[in-house]
Amino acid sequence: MNVDGRPYRSIWLDDSGAVRIIDQRRLPHAFETPRLDDLAAAASAIAEMRVRGAPLIGVTAAYGLALALRDDPSDAGLEAARATLLATRPTAVNLRWALDRVTDVVAGQPTGRRAETARRAASAMAEEDVARNRRIGEHGLKLIRAVAARKREGPVRVLTHCNAGWLATVDWGTATAPIYRAHDEGTPVHVWVDETRPRNQGASLTAWELGQHGVPHTVIADNAGGHLMREGRVDLCLVGTDRTTAAGDVANKIGTYLKALAARDNGIPFYVAAPSASIDWTLADGADIPIEERSGDEVATVTGRTADGRVETVAVVPIGSPVANPAFDVTPARLVTALITEWGVVEASRGGLAPIRERARAAGPPVDAGRSG
Amino acid sequence: MNVDGRPYRSIWLDDSGAVRIIDQRRLPHAFETPRLDDLAAAASAIAEMRVRGAPLIGVTAAYGLALALRDDPSDAGLEAARATLLATRPTAVNLRWALDRVTDVVAGQPTGRRAETARRAASAMAEEDVARNRRIGEHGLKLIRAVAARKREGPVRVLTHCNAGWLATVDWGTATAPIYRAHDEGTPVHVWVDETRPRNQGASLTAWELGQHGVPHTVIADNAGGHLMREGRVDLCLVGTDRTTAAGDVANKIGTYLKALAARDNGIPFYVAAPSASIDWTLADGADIPIEERSGDEVATVTGRTADGRVETVAVVPIGSPVANPAFDVTPARLVTALITEWGVVEASRGGLAPIRERARAAGPPVDAGRSG
Repeated sequence: MNVDGRPYRSIWLDDSGAVRIIDQRRLPHAFETPRLDDLAAAASAIAEMRVRGAPLIGVTAAYGLALALRDDPSDAGLEAARATLLATRPTAVNLRWALDRVTDVVAGQPTGRRAETARRAASAMAEEDVARNRRIGEHGLKLIRAVAARKREGPVRVLTHCNAGWLATVDWGTATAPIYRAHDEGTPVHVWVDETRPRNQGASLTAWELGQHGVPHTVIADNAGGHLMREGRVDLCLVGTDRTTAAGDVANKIGTYLKALAARDNGIPFYVAAPSASIDWTLADGADIPIEERSGDEVATVTGRTADGRVETVAVVPIGSPVANPAFDVTPARLVTALITEWGVVEASRGGLAPIRERARAAGPPVDAGRSG
Repeated sequence: MNVDGRPYRSIWLDDSGAVRIIDQRRLPHAFETPRLDDLAAAASAIAEMRVRGAPLIGVTAAYGLALALRDDPSDAGLEAARATLLATRPTAVNLRWALDRVTDVVAGQPTGRRAETARRAASAMAEEDVARNRRIGEHGLKLIRAVAARKREGPVRVLTHCNAGWLATVDWGTATAPIYRAHDEGTPVHVWVDETRPRNQGASLTAWELGQHGVPHTVIADNAGGHLMREGRVDLCLVGTDRTTAAGDVANKIGTYLKALAARDNGIPFYVAAPSASIDWTLADGADIPIEERSGDEVATVTGRTADGRVETVAVVPIGSPVANPAFDVTPARLVTALITEWGVVEASRGGLAPIRERARAAGPPVDAGRSG
């Protein structure tokens, strides 16, 4: 999508052929696009969360392997690079998938061709991600258009939580793809952006990318969404998912469940953009999803920009007060109006997901999951 | 309640007879107890929100009038002081009530006795607030004991939102009164403290006062409460109210409604500590309550303590992103398990409130409302 009027992706090859990323740790306070020149640069970009979001982590790791093979294409080099990249985010399932996929295509090749083959595989993965998200956008666009057709005036008012935006993918994003499609075609949209404490991905990433692309939006405290729905100021909710069960339960950023409850209480549709890769067919029930408990420092502190432009971290909790930080919650399928997959909009239920399961089986293992980090 | 092992109130007369307050703007980063020596000091303490919370604002204004009358007990002096104090927080209804009450008792007196009479009236108002909250604590304590009796082990786990604590009143608080009573009598409690963005009164005030009094608690992001309820880690919710309708609808800090929805979805009781003065008998329906839209700066920035101990404000929203900041939401009576008034625990309905209405009529106009701001 656009940054300051120019189209960008979250990872790309520049004119000199170098791998470039957007340093997302610096957003929204600075826009920097560092080069990844070698394995170490790629590994640290993932480990330090300069790139985040499942699809983007996978593609970055794939390019990292290509960079490593340029310097050492031997079997030992390949193995060492894999180990380095796998260690960057130990719980990111998609990281392993992406590395396995690149390894599979280069392993049988002579060393002289490995780097170029890996690079092509990484680029193919990036293109697949873009195409998949564009399809999610197409399917979701129909839902937005239907609301627009019903309304007499004003934009379609979408509430979103966290960042399931293009920054978490290679382009388009998942939950944002229908929004960008609608905006680009001239269907007026306005997005309520949940701040998304504790890590503020809504305020710092979603608001930034919507603003850069020119999509009208308003940042709100996470507490405000229920009130806006009660007042009739939200037409639909649209969020991403980190992990979806075979029954349609959705694990997403902490706080998603509260918004789904408010949507249900006010008769507002609650849609989840769920790439097929986010669906874990082995999970029968949301209660089976382990919830990551992250560092309390994320709640106890906030990082932002001082009046004189420095980036500073401040503590907002009294010294000595304990803090808990569950990172995700589970929204049961009964609260989800529909799942928007790259293969169409389906009911959040075992039956609704049956055709998606068939297609997923036919398509083979996915290269990435939906985790938006 | 206790601060560092010593009992405090939020406003008191020290050994020299001076009015002292806790500078709540400095909490939780510093504990300072400035003197209010004259009308100007009292007025600026209210205007700058060094004191906040309806009962405390009312009592501070009453003492402010007494201080003014010491310097100028004439009718003109009384009128000027009233005007100065009324202008500090134009929307605080209780401010007017408190000033009216003091004015009523001093107006008929000779100027030589006005200051002392006003001072005694202010002290009486403070004592009434303490007694009222203690009664709310007694009634709420029974609810906590009932849960404790049902549980085989572990503390009664209470979730609260914002600060309806002793800092918002003269002592005990409203929502916190039952918690302090339980803790003090040895019934184990643990409090989940919602951070309460955007102004963070949960993290900065409730966590501080619970910690100082020794009540076990854990600060969480506002997003986390629904997840904790789903996981069975909350026994009851207990919040305050800024304004209650005759039908039992509750206007409280933004985000309260979301927690009430989650409590209902998980079969957890949702109690509201509602002093009779918070009930507006002229309001039939929550939809009639006007919701204050506050400055977006409260959402766009966060104030906290830097690693080297300075207090700094940082921006967390991209430059140019619009922000909305509704300050309260309405929790409909159907989601409220019961209201805890100083006259007992009642159903949140017109019928349930009937005996409270009778007592309120008999008791005459209240001196303060429930606004915990």
